[in-house]
Order: sequence, then structure tokens, then C-alpha cells
Amino acid sequence: MKKRNVYIDNIEDELAIIMYRDRLRIESQSESVPLEESHGRVTAVAVYAKKSSPHYNSAAMDGILVRSKDTEGASEVRPVELKEGEDFVYVNTGNPILEGFDSVIMIEDVIECGDGRVKINKSSHPWQYIRNIGEDIVVTEMIIPSNHEIRAIDLGALAAGGIEEIEVYKKPVVGIVPTGSEIVKSATTDIEGEITDSNSLMFAGLVREYGGEPHRIDPVRDEYELLKEKISTEVDRSDILIINAGSSAGTKDYTKSIIEELGEVVVHGIAVKPGKPTILGIIRNKAVVGLPGYPVSSYIAFETFVKPILLDYSGKRKKPSQVEAILSKRVYSSLKHKELIRVSLGVVNGKLIATPISGGAGATMSLVKADGIGIVPREVEGIESGDKISVQLLKPYDEIEDTLVSIGSHDMVMDILGDMMRVSSAHTGSLGGIISMKKKESHVAPIHLLDESTGEYNISYVKKYFPGGGMSLIKGVQRVQGFIVPKGNPKQIQSVKDLSRGDIVFVNRQRGSGTRILLDYHISREGVDTEAIDGYDLEYNTHMDIAQAVKSGNADVGLGIASAAYALGLDFVELADEEYDFLVYTDSLKEAEIEKFIEILRSEEFKKRVAEIPGYKTDRAGEVVEVN
Amino acid sequence: MKKRNVYIDNIEDELAIIMYRDRLRIESQSESVPLEESHGRVTAVAVYAKKSSPHYNSAAMDGILVRSKDTEGASEVRPVELKEGEDFVYVNTGNPILEGFDSVIMIEDVIECGDGRVKINKSSHPWQYIRNIGEDIVVTEMIIPSNHEIRAIDLGALAAGGIEEIEVYKKPVVGIVPTGSEIVKSATTDIEGEITDSNSLMFAGLVREYGGEPHRIDPVRDEYELLKEKISTEVDRSDILIINAGSSAGTKDYTKSIIEELGEVVVHGIAVKPGKPTILGIIRNKAVVGLPGYPVSSYIAFETFVKPILLDYSGKRKKPSQVEAILSKRVYSSLKHKELIRVSLGVVNGKLIATPISGGAGATMSLVKADGIGIVPREVEGIESGDKISVQLLKPYDEIEDTLVSIGSHDMVMDILGDMMRVSSAHTGSLGGIISMKKKESHVAPIHLLDESTGEYNISYVKKYFPGGGMSLIKGVQRVQGFIVPKGNPKQIQSVKDLSRGDIVFVNRQRGSGTRILLDYHISREGVDTEAIDGYDLEYNTHMDIAQAVKSGNADVGLGIASAAYALGLDFVELADEEYDFLVYTDSLKEAEIEKFIEILRSEEFKKRVAEIPGYKTDRAGEVVEVN
Repeated sequence: MKKRNVYIDNIEDELAIIMYRDRLRIESQSESVPLEESHGRVTAVAVYAKKSSPHYNSAAMDGILVRSKDTEGASEVRPVELKEGEDFVYVNTGNPILEGFDSVIMIEDVIECGDGRVKINKSSHPWQYIRNIGEDIVVTEMIIPSNHEIRAIDLGALAAGGIEEIEVYKKPVVGIVPTGSEIVKSATTDIEGEITDSNSLMFAGLVREYGGEPHRIDPVRDEYELLKEKISTEVDRSDILIINAGSSAGTKDYTKSIIEELGEVVVHGIAVKPGKPTILGIIRNKAVVGLPGYPVSSYIAFETFVKPILLDYSGKRKKPSQVEAILSKRVYSSLKHKELIRVSLGVVNGKLIATPISGGAGATMSLVKADGIGIVPREVEGIESGDKISVQLLKPYDEIEDTLVSIGSHDMVMDILGDMMRVSSAHTGSLGGIISMKKKESHVAPIHLLDESTGEYNISYVKKYFPGGGMSLIKGVQRVQGFIVPKGNPKQIQSVKDLSRGDIVFVNRQRGSGTRILLDYHISREGVDTEAIDGYDLEYNTHMDIAQAVKSGNADVGLGIASAAYALGLDFVELADEEYDFLVYTDSLKEAEIEKFIEILRSEEFKKRVAEIPGYKTDRAGEVVEVN
Repeated sequence: MKKRNVYIDNIEDELAIIMYRDRLRIESQSESVPLEESHGRVTAVAVYAKKSSPHYNSAAMDGILVRSKDTEGASEVRPVELKEGEDFVYVNTGNPILEGFDSVIMIEDVIECGDGRVKINKSSHPWQYIRNIGEDIVVTEMIIPSNHEIRAIDLGALAAGGIEEIEVYKKPVVGIVPTGSEIVKSATTDIEGEITDSNSLMFAGLVREYGGEPHRIDPVRDEYELLKEKISTEVDRSDILIINAGSSAGTKDYTKSIIEELGEVVVHGIAVKPGKPTILGIIRNKAVVGLPGYPVSSYIAFETFVKPILLDYSGKRKKPSQVEAILSKRVYSSLKHKELIRVSLGVVNGKLIATPISGGAGATMSLVKADGIGIVPREVEGIESGDKISVQLLKPYDEIEDTLVSIGSHDMVMDILGDMMRVSSAHTGSLGGIISMKKKESHVAPIHLLDESTGEYNISYVKKYFPGGGMSLIKGVQRVQGFIVPKGNPKQIQSVKDLSRGDIVFVNRQRGSGTRILLDYHISREGVDTEAIDGYDLEYNTHMDIAQAVKSGNADVGLGIASAAYALGLDFVELADEEYDFLVYTDSLKEAEIEKFIEILRSEEFKKRVAEIPGYKTDRAGEVVEVN
């Protein structure tokens, strides 16, 4: 058995980058490209005009070229007559100004007399309608400095300044080597034992964004000599080489040993979470970086370590937009690491609110859904709810400003709404939604809360939590809740009484969720002992999580909505109808986002799309009910 | 003679766009592209996961697969022994979880006993080190909504969700037809009568930025039938057609008539300056836009009218970043137009300052140098100095924050400094620089002000304008000022006395500039009558403007620096040495930008580069002198 690696270091990221750059001593190279292909490239040297624009004195109008002295005193009453060839010549826009002439009269002001003679009834001043040499650009003038990313508006000036070729930084070639015997290139594989290589595609995209040229190869199996050979070959073809994964400390994590054998490891293990098991190495003066395998870790590690090196080569500036937001939920963190957390963002009552998104380092979707990455610095134990947090944006800020923030219960109609307008939704359960509304951290809170005494939904809860009034409900959908069970309902589950039978593993929803309240209502009505339910304490946050637990065989049954069951090919046993509504402040009903939201709920398109999911009614969707 | 067109309209831009969109009824089209090529494209429909990720329950570690029940009670003291094949099987990361097993123990925690047996001394819990089906992505889950620009981080999730092809908006083809008999494609032409087509290159760049596919053709001569034929052909190959120029109201401005003949003109003439002579037309249901010819007008008109139509097709969101700045100089505007002004921006003392850049609609360079476009709304007569102005950024904001703002006298070393660090420089003359420093609108003010009583430079002025003290001078360069005259000095100009000879046309610098003060000092010393100097009242803002006026034959002589004369191949007659220094607040010497500025002035590279220009000394460059 190979010995296990240990992380040598726990170095701060900023320090690691300084050390790495210092050892690498990158010398970026330049190349000459035709002007037409220079858009988006970065100048390696300043560009100076090779000619003036215009490069000769030229007519700025169609008309006649005259000596201004000859026109002195011309008026309506006393027009001046001029003779072609002697006193004037016809010119078109762009024609050169002939020696001895100094003024252009536009054709509309010229009265033709025939016989090669014209009359004018207004004097013209010297240099009238003449574009002078260098009026726009003077030869030798600097058009754009070095280290400047060429924009569309620069292209016109460069052409006018006589530039045909331009010296820009060469695009660094970034080799991407995916490793792992289970990793395959195909996105559609359904073979057990094969995992799609999704990271390489993300790396290639990031490389392009930062001005590099990605070069992907097929996944390499976990065989030491094979991997070593591949790395050795790819290093020679690349300026920067990424190896993914195998950078951790497991027995088959060969990256470190191979880099050590072929070159040197500068840093292994960095005080950033996620992203710790990163290797910064050098082989034959090339940067070789081992990135961790989990998608979120690999993204963070790429941004932290590969990006700055890549920008050193490409000359691009790609500072992420950084904003300050108010954190809506406490985050914990270790003193030993800088911690980077995914957050959703939204502007509510003029304040930018950041809500942490749950999910481990493997949760690609949490990264896709995130609006930004919040930073908890090292030597800080966490950030309190209501305190400020620095966030690097993953989306343009104006998009975040236009987004409806929804915090509360989860339902699949949120996906449909999210496709019809910009919605940022966090799933905290119904009571979590009510709390977020009280703290004014969301625009709407989707809730479905059963009053166990009246059997009525939502209204009594709103009255209880907002005794001061001012609240309304926007009616959403009516949906069926029931038992999600494997196809064919093999354990014949029909009522809550079955849950305590002893041969059944149940999965529950989190406390505060409407589904949990519904379950507990039925359990107490039927007199079932929760102690007797195996899995009562195992909590999940969404209907899909419940369905997935049943699908994977981790549980026999869970409570949820029909659509979640059918989406995964499971069966469904109806328990009760319920009302899924959106809580809002009555005051906010006139806000643009809320108005649009109501309009969408009322639209035929929304109703049509919901009708495609089983178990829903939309009769009252978009109706506004003032509660108190 | 053809009749002159008249502008029909003076419509507000927002209204013009609404009318145009309403008539156009754009139906954007979509196409399917492979995932690898989808980066930066915009989804036409929401994308739902086709498979779960992982799509089977899999080992998350290399190790052994066990039944958790079998491991109950295992401890250091009482290890549990397991038999291969019966109690466990070896698994690698990614291997499927076999029926009946429910837990993975990592290989590092397994003690091999030989004989197909292993010992473990810790119990394992159910689902330990197992990645469940759908842990990352659940089949049917929405990965990204419609109208979403695909980012690098989306690519990974899409691959993991089994997506190989993706439905995106088709890139609209934008045909670009340059017109004008004087317009040629070559950037290097030195033929009089030929003007380089620089706008097409800029349009092509903008089209790419907004998600379109540019299609340029060679310039078309001003011939009605020829142009009509080209437009008719190109319309069929394009989704949007741009015609540049000929959109104005001159006799050879055929665009409007041709569009009317082939289709319809929706709007001609819009209440925006620059950009008024724009034509919004439709031919065979295609958008056909006539843009004005001057570079700044054509850029503004493209941004205002072509961009929104293009984005309708491409689905991209490209809102310009808009900021509020404090205007440092009053701007005038007509009530009848919205006025868009080029501004340079800089953050001084924490305030964002916008300084208008001078230059007509032809001045491409003013657009290249601008940091943003300031908006003076219609029905406003202008904006006062010190008031707020809305500015659309032309550069990333972080770049603007990193920029040293220099307002004052012009010198060619500013180009060198601007290449060595980010400098935004406005040329207002030395006294203008002092005023900007008093108003705290710039970091440094380059000045060269001669005290006529002492012959000393700068110091007495600083003492006079800043009686409260706290000011320092960063020494810049010593430079020779003199007469800029045509090659060979044909009019034999040797002293200021020659300027009033009668046969000489002079060009002057603006009042408040150091060069003007130097001139007036010598004029009064020699007793020359300024009334007798032809051109004494004609003022230009920079040394290069003066040199260019001499070069183009508009003047016989002007006062300026040697480098400006030599850059244009002119001659130079020395008059005096002077000191070009940078005024700063002593307090600000420790600020990052100022420190960097001083460091550059002191650097060998700066001195070497200045030495290449004739007429300069850099002995004291970067020295700091506290004045008061």
C-alpha cells in the first residue's frame, strides 16, 4: 500500500500566490495580429498613430472650393459671381483642398447661372467646411496605452490612425487534464460506475473568459505511470497545466508525487475552504496546478490560484465586482481558514441581502444558483445575521436588482416562475419564510401553513405573526400532498398509521415547513407515536430531496407533493389538499417586481405550464387577499 | 439638382425605439448548439436535467463496501473482522453500491489481515461515504432558466445534468454597408481624396459584443442605383442592416430615399445630440438603420438604436453600468435635445468627478479617451459645475478607481506617463489645473507658470492661490518652449517682434495656459502690440493643436514645445526653458496613486523614454518640494 500524503502547508491564499509568482517569474509573450482580429486582446505596447486623420486638408461638404477673400461682402442684395476654373472648382466631401483655395461653400448655397458661372449671396470665412490635417488624430499621438483591452470604439480610432497590425499579449495555452478511473467524457452516460467529466468544461470556459486558450484532453485513469506520461507531454504543449483531481491526500492522489518527480511542488494545502487541497507546482518553468475534484472546490481554487497566473500571461483585467451585503443568516467558520460561501442576493427595501445557500462542495447546482461568493476572512469565527459581508458577484448587479427575492416553502412552481421572471428563491420552509418577511429580507414568502383548529390555510398564521397588520396573501396554487413511495407502493402505505408499523423507514421534512406541520396534524389526529416512526428525526429541506431519498432506496416513504414523486418515476398516495400562497406586505403590492409577479401568476401561460404537472389547481392564482 | 431632404421628426429616443419595435415585431429565432460551443450564448428555453448527478449510488472514497449493521460495536479494543466477498467487497471512488450493502469504509481505516480478511476498529454508519443518486442534480430539475447567458460555471452543471445540445437564440446577422465615394477600406492609404472606413470596424466590434454576427462589405460609392442594389442584396442576407453614412439631409444623402423606395422609413431625425440624423427604416421586415457618419455620432446612434434591436434578437443583457458623478465644469445643452457628452472620470477624495472632454462629433480620439458618456436630459438647459450627472461607463469602474486624475497643462510626457500607469488627463492649461486642485477635483495639476517679476516658475503662483499652505510640487521635466514654424522657417521668424510684422498669421494658446503667460511675458518685455499680431485671438488648447495648425497651413507660427514641432516634421526656434511640475496636496503624497506616480517619474525607464523626445531634461523628475 502506498503511503498517504499529508498536506505540508496551510498557507494563506494571498501569500501562496506571492510565493508562487515569485518562483514562476512569468514572462508574458506578445504577437502581432491584424487589427480586425484584435478586439478583446490586450496591447503589449502603446499604439501611436502612424498617420494623421484626416491625412490631408479635405472638403467636409459637397460644394465649391473658393478663396474666402473673393467672397467678401457677398449678400442677398449684392451677390458675388464666381467663374469655374478661375474663382472656384466643384468639390465633393473628402476631396483635397487645392493650393491657393481656403474655403468650401456647400452646394445648397450655390446658385448656378449656367455658362460655368455661379452666384453666392453670403461671404465664406477661411477654413469653412474644411477638415484640417490631424483634426481627429495627429500622427505620433498615442491612441491607446499598453496593457489596454481593445474595445470596439478603439478599433475605429486605430484604423483612422493607420494601424493595420497590433502587438498584443499572446493567449496562454492552458492544458486541462481530468483524472480518475471513473471519469468519462460523455455527458449522457447511464452506466453505473461512470461519472461525467463536468469540471473540464467549466475550466475551459473560465480559461476563455480570462483570455487563455483551453486545451482539454480525455480523462486519464488512476495509473501512476500513465498519468505521469500524460502530464509530461501536456506540460510541453501548455503555458499552464491544470490537473483535476487527485490533489488531495488519498492513496490514489498521485498529482503531488508526479509533480515532485518531474519538477517541484511550491505549495500543497491552502487555508481556503473550499479549495484547501490545491497543489501549486512547477515543471520545466511551467505552472502546474492540481485542483480538487468537487465542483465548488475546483471553481474556488481555479479562481483563487489559476486565474491570477492566467491574467499575468494574458494581460486581461478581470476584477470581480465586489459588493457589501447584509447577511440574513449566521455563518460559522474556522479561525484557521478563509471561508468562501455561496449566497443568493436580492435588493429588498433598498438593502442588499445575502442569504447563504446550503450544499456541500459537490453541489454544482448551488454554484449555478448562487448570485455571489461571500467571504469570511481567516481569523474570524463567523459572521452574525444582520452584519455585513463582502460578496464577489457571479451575475451583473443590475440583474440582481431586477430579481424578486422569495424565501420560504419549496414547490416546483417556483421553477416555472423562475423561468418566467428573475426569481432568487431560498428554501427555508414556511415558518422560515415568515421570519424572513418579518426581517424584511425578502419580497415574498411562499407558505402553506395549516391551522390545526380551523383546517384553514395561512391566514391565522399571518394574523398571529403580524399582529400589527399590513399583510396580504397572493394566492398561488392548490396542491395535493401525500406519500411518496417506490413504484407499485411495495410496502402498501395508505395512511400515517402505517409509518409506525416497524418495517418502514421514513424521511421527514424540517421543522417549520408546512409539510411537517401537515404531517404532525395528521399524526396527532390519528394518535400515532412519533417515537415509533423510524426516520422521524431525519430531516430534508425540499420535496425533491424526499423523493430522491425514496428513489435511492434510503427510505421507504416520505411526505411530499405529487409532482416530485412523478418526476422521479415514483408512486404517490394522496393525503390532503393544501394552499400554497405568497405572503407580501400590502404596501409593496405596487412595486414593479411584485406587480410583474402577480401578472405572471394570472397569465394563461403560467396556468398552462402548471397544468402539465399532476396534482395542481390554479383557479385562484394571482388573486390578492388582504389579511389584516 | 436633387432636392434636399428635410428631417421629418425630432422624436425622443425612447419613443422612437418603441415605435420602431412596434412596427418591426421582431421574432427572435433559436438554434441547437453543442454544449461545448454554448458559452456566452443565451438560452431560448429553460434547460432541465436529463439525468441525475450522480445517476447511481456510488462510493465517494476508495475503500471497502460493507453492511453498516455488521460493523456495530467495532472499537480499538474489540475490532470487527470481515470476510471478502461475504462481508465486504473492495471499491474505488465512483464504483456503484451493490445491492444489500449500505456503507463505505475508507481504505486508510482498513487493516488487512491477509487471507481475504480485514479488521476495522470503528463502526460505520448507514450511507457513510456514499454519494446518493441526485445528490448534486435531480433529473427534471431546472438547471438554468430561459433568457440566461451561459457562464463557465453553468457548463459544468449542464454536462453533469446530461445535456449535450442546448437551444439558444440565433446570432442575428448584422450587415454593415459603408457609403461615400471618398471612403476606402485601407487603413494605410496616403492618397489625398481617400478616407479610411474606420466606423465599420467599430460597428463590427459592437455587433460582436452584443451577440450578433457582423457582415462587412466594401465601401459603396455615392451612386443612387448602385447603392440601392447593394442595400437590396444585403437586406436579404441580414437580420439588421446598417448604412453608414448618408443619413443626413444633404443632396447626396440617398439612404432615406432608397429605404422609402424599397420599404418604409419609420423615423428620420431624433432628439439626441450627437446622433440626430439617424434613420430607422424597414425593408422586407428587416431593420434597416441609417447612421450618421461622424464617429462620435455614429457610436451614440448605434448604442441608442441598433443595440436594443440587436439585443432583442440575441437575447443578451448588456445594460451599461451607470454611475452618478459630480460635474467639474458646466455643460450647456438645448431644451430640444437629449445631449450626450464624453467625460473623463476619476475618484478624488472619495468623490467621483466627471470632466467634460472637448471635441466635435468627428473626434474619435475623444471617444477613445472618454471614461464615460454623461447624459443631459431633454428639457434641461445644461448642468452646473458641482451638480450631479448620470454617466454610462465606457471602462470598468475598478479601472477608473485606480486612475490618477491630472488636470492642467498639456505636455507630451503625459502620454508616456499614461502608458506607464493609468492616468486620466484633461488639458485646461496651468491655471485651469490650479482651479481644479482648489476644487479638489484632481490628484495632480501639471503647471508651468512663470513669475514675470522673479523669472521663477510655479512657486509664487502656488503661494498666491493657496495662502493656507499644505501644497507641494513634484518636479516634472524642464522643457524648451519656442516658435513652431514650417520646415525651413520660410518666414524667418526669430523673436516675438516678428509676430507683428504684418505678413505673419499667428495661432495662440488659451488664456490661463503657461505657454500664453510665457508669450505675454516676452511680448511685454519686447514692447510688442498684441493688436498688431494677426491671430492673437485664435486660441487652441494643446501644443499638438498648434503644431497641426502650422502643418496644415492655417498659420505661419505658434508658440509651443519642440517635440510637437518635430513630431509633425516642422521646425523649431528656441525661446526659453521652463519648468513643468505637478502640483499636489502635501497630505496626499502618501496615497497609493501619488506614490506610484512619483516612483515612475524617478524611474530609469521614464527618463529613458523622455530622452527620446528632443528638448527635455529630467534631472529633477520625481523630486518633491514642499512649497508652503
